[in-house]
Amino acid sequence: MPPAQGAGVGFLAVDSGGSGLRVVVGEVGRPVSVPLASGESVRTGPRGIDAGHFMEQLVPMVRALADEAGCAEWGTAVIGATGLATLGDGLREELPGALAREFGVRTVALVADAVSAYVGALGIRPGAVVAAGTGLIAIGTDLTGWRRADGWGHLLGDCGGGAWIGRAGLEAALRAYDGRDGGSGPLLACAEEQFGPLPGLPGKLYPRPDRPAVLASFAPRVAQCAPDDPVAAGILRAAARHMAESAAAVCPTTGEPRVALTGGLFRMGDPLLVPVREELAKRLPHAQLVAAAGDPLDGAVRIARDLAAGVLTLPADGVMVHVVGVAGRGDHF
Amino acid sequence: MPPAQGAGVGFLAVDSGGSGLRVVVGEVGRPVSVPLASGESVRTGPRGIDAGHFMEQLVPMVRALADEAGCAEWGTAVIGATGLATLGDGLREELPGALAREFGVRTVALVADAVSAYVGALGIRPGAVVAAGTGLIAIGTDLTGWRRADGWGHLLGDCGGGAWIGRAGLEAALRAYDGRDGGSGPLLACAEEQFGPLPGLPGKLYPRPDRPAVLASFAPRVAQCAPDDPVAAGILRAAARHMAESAAAVCPTTGEPRVALTGGLFRMGDPLLVPVREELAKRLPHAQLVAAAGDPLDGAVRIARDLAAGVLTLPADGVMVHVVGVAGRGDHF
Repeated sequence: MPPAQGAGVGFLAVDSGGSGLRVVVGEVGRPVSVPLASGESVRTGPRGIDAGHFMEQLVPMVRALADEAGCAEWGTAVIGATGLATLGDGLREELPGALAREFGVRTVALVADAVSAYVGALGIRPGAVVAAGTGLIAIGTDLTGWRRADGWGHLLGDCGGGAWIGRAGLEAALRAYDGRDGGSGPLLACAEEQFGPLPGLPGKLYPRPDRPAVLASFAPRVAQCAPDDPVAAGILRAAARHMAESAAAVCPTTGEPRVALTGGLFRMGDPLLVPVREELAKRLPHAQLVAAAGDPLDGAVRIARDLAAGVLTLPADGVMVHVVGVAGRGDHF
Repeated sequence: MPPAQGAGVGFLAVDSGGSGLRVVVGEVGRPVSVPLASGESVRTGPRGIDAGHFMEQLVPMVRALADEAGCAEWGTAVIGATGLATLGDGLREELPGALAREFGVRTVALVADAVSAYVGALGIRPGAVVAAGTGLIAIGTDLTGWRRADGWGHLLGDCGGGAWIGRAGLEAALRAYDGRDGGSGPLLACAEEQFGPLPGLPGKLYPRPDRPAVLASFAPRVAQCAPDDPVAAGILRAAARHMAESAAAVCPTTGEPRVALTGGLFRMGDPLLVPVREELAKRLPHAQLVAAAGDPLDGAVRIARDLAAGVLTLPADGVMVHVVGVAGRGDHF
């Protein structure tokens, strides 16, 4: 079957993260489809993110969207994926071929989730984005290359992220419990409300596989206490300082870069946002803080549109942005 | 067989920790035996520390020591054990009976390893002891009760311990790698020497079950860099401040308490000891810093001697110090 008319500029855009795949399809010059979500995160195996499991989730979602769109050929696919840098070997090797066989895709871009978050927030402009949820990473570009800072995980960094804030809050609760300096009575009360008597807390945290998420679950309590508790406010101030340090490490030092914040952590609102704005203004006076325009899936869509239209100006470095051409069904090699 | 003469005042003393059991036997008024070590840590199961596995290790060691000592009846046993407060249910229920059946023991004291460390370091005197290895706990007494501070593990506290120092050192290395504030070039060089290229570090740390030990393995590098690197020196200064905070939370506020440091972390020497001495002098000017007289096994021996001689003045609270009388073979109930 020959490719349907216009299929050369049709595209798939995918965001693959901890809560599963989200997918849209579209064509250049037209609005994208509604997004579909799998709700199940892609398994990782010995070769990292499991390309087979990825395709198992993707294929039925794309078929459903294709029926809606009246189109079954997609020339371009952009996948923004968590863990791509460290766990992406399987995806990089297997996904382009699988997408070509299944959908006739001829150009595939695998981008780190930090890159799709960046483009979703700022578009294709120089600047820096701080992406914060349970973890924290900063990414920046001058449009000739990418820089990243932090994102090392809860034991080595992710300074200022959700697990970092929650951990600091629990430490302050336990300091109050012990009668050590630096304790917070309000955080102690919150910790007992959330976790029960504190001597039981280690037993509720250490055996769990999702320790960073358990720590991050306490972060909203820190924000809740901050207006009246100087210890909680100090934790958020320190988090804000760490975010500004990471943003400063990746932001272009010349020109008029933009800076944006993205990710679930910023739903905390003013107790975190006010100090973050102040620390960014101190640390990056030449940068303009703007609201994030969209999320990582919006970023994948933008990259896909530009790639499909042949106008992508995003720096590709093989790791953060990995673009490959493949022999699709429509090509007669 | 009736008890051998003098067996009523014979004792066993045991230190049970991460590297296994260490055991000595003795009699009041005489030097103790050489210590024997099992080299294998006692398993934990659904009921905490496994009393059966504990006895499996203990029995042959005590028999070997008894042959040397020419004595097979022990009226008193003192067990200092890591994790007793949280994982000691099985030991508390099964060990006294097992020791009575096997050795004719009539009085058993189960003491937290922090208590045996305290008594080993300071004897039975009011004061505070900071015990630091991979983790960190402070314990203090006015001889009417016990206070403890920290010891919450590497995600919730253990502030200033080996994992804490190593983690802070690796964070400083990664800050330098990223170009963030607070980085240390010398620590970056040490981290690359120890762990290879740093993008691989998360993969070498997070999948391991012994993450705190991996973090603590970097602590000696921080001490090594401290004389010439202000970032490394700052980490050890902060560790010293945390130790003084924990000591202050447990030390009697009146009288002339003594303070001692014990545990493997202090083998770091001056780069850590100099700031610790300064911070303790600031925080606890009424206390006298003394050298630890002995280790946790020495503490278990001291408690056993006093208990066997009927002169133990250590506060018993059922948790930190749990003393029980049992019906041994020598009693005809």
